[in-house]
Amino acid sequence: MQNPTKNDFPIHDLLRTRWSPRAFDAKAVEPAKVKSLLEAARWAPSSYNEQPWAFLIATKAQPAEHAKLLECLIEFNQSWAKAAPLLIITVAHTSFAMNAKPNRHAFHDVGLAMANLTIQATAEGLVVHQMAGILPDKVRELYAVPADWDAVTGVAIGYPGDPATLNDALREKELAERTRKPQASFVFSGSWGKAVSL
Amino acid sequence: MQNPTKNDFPIHDLLRTRWSPRAFDAKAVEPAKVKSLLEAARWAPSSYNEQPWAFLIATKAQPAEHAKLLECLIEFNQSWAKAAPLLIITVAHTSFAMNAKPNRHAFHDVGLAMANLTIQATAEGLVVHQMAGILPDKVRELYAVPADWDAVTGVAIGYPGDPATLNDALREKELAERTRKPQASFVFSGSWGKAVSL
Repeated sequence: MQNPTKNDFPIHDLLRTRWSPRAFDAKAVEPAKVKSLLEAARWAPSSYNEQPWAFLIATKAQPAEHAKLLECLIEFNQSWAKAAPLLIITVAHTSFAMNAKPNRHAFHDVGLAMANLTIQATAEGLVVHQMAGILPDKVRELYAVPADWDAVTGVAIGYPGDPATLNDALREKELAERTRKPQASFVFSGSWGKAVSL
Repeated sequence: MQNPTKNDFPIHDLLRTRWSPRAFDAKAVEPAKVKSLLEAARWAPSSYNEQPWAFLIATKAQPAEHAKLLECLIEFNQSWAKAAPLLIITVAHTSFAMNAKPNRHAFHDVGLAMANLTIQATAEGLVVHQMAGILPDKVRELYAVPADWDAVTGVAIGYPGDPATLNDALREKELAERTRKPQASFVFSGSWGKAVSL
């Protein structure tokens, strides 16, 4: 199924059709596609070209790894993300490699990389569901994440599945109309809260 | 000019051709395109669908606004970004609207939105250069940004220009080969630093 945006102004199809479902098909993500997803992330821009991102990944082809990564999600997310054949934990380098000073944009730049990955996934017919609900301390413990790196998100990736595989509450979320605030509420000119006239 | 990625694995053309030049053509960005850029950002995913982003924008059609926004960039960035017909300051809502608790993913989600905007811009024939080098306190002062919102980046947008318009140092940067770390240095499985075998 699809659940495209109700956009007010035209946007590219890869952006219009992207969404974050919770139903996944059992079909594995082909290794070549996994590499393309990570390559898309790799070529994101970043502050000082620092590339302050790392990705812990697990596929169902390695069930023990998949189960281990799943443990890093909060319980609610585990309940549906376990169906996703490809799981990722994104990790941000919170200080600069060159001088160990704090990188204020580390999380931001992980976001840039993940949106790129998501666009590539959409182009490949895949769906991506990013999760804030993870257990960063568990990630650090299970994966020996260095002190100046922090887990940011969990990510479930796969081919779109049938919403009928979800429980009632999740299926209702899946089929709900997607919503966003209007542009006038967050695009300002001249002063905070002042609408733009173009 | 173009300066496409030297990618190791195939990625979508919109990702492959995206880059962050400093030379801009004088041509204005059409208002309809500005709306589409912001619409692309609007439909990004975010933690709890919080949409923790705001955009301060200025075009050269309003020279006083353009100059005011330019003042929020560090001097080096002002030197070239002044040529861009469209400037944006991105702002993150660092606490949740629903309960005022800190939003750990606010900067990350601004990154998701900005990558969407950048993809839309690329599809429209525009180029986008994001800058960490801004003066967040100056933004707060000049635009009356609320306490629980923080300026994140500056963004210069326009049609691609001629690198000959840049000074020698900037032109050299513009024409340099673009580089990224190899996937093996940031994609891990099972444990930190352990290469993936797919």
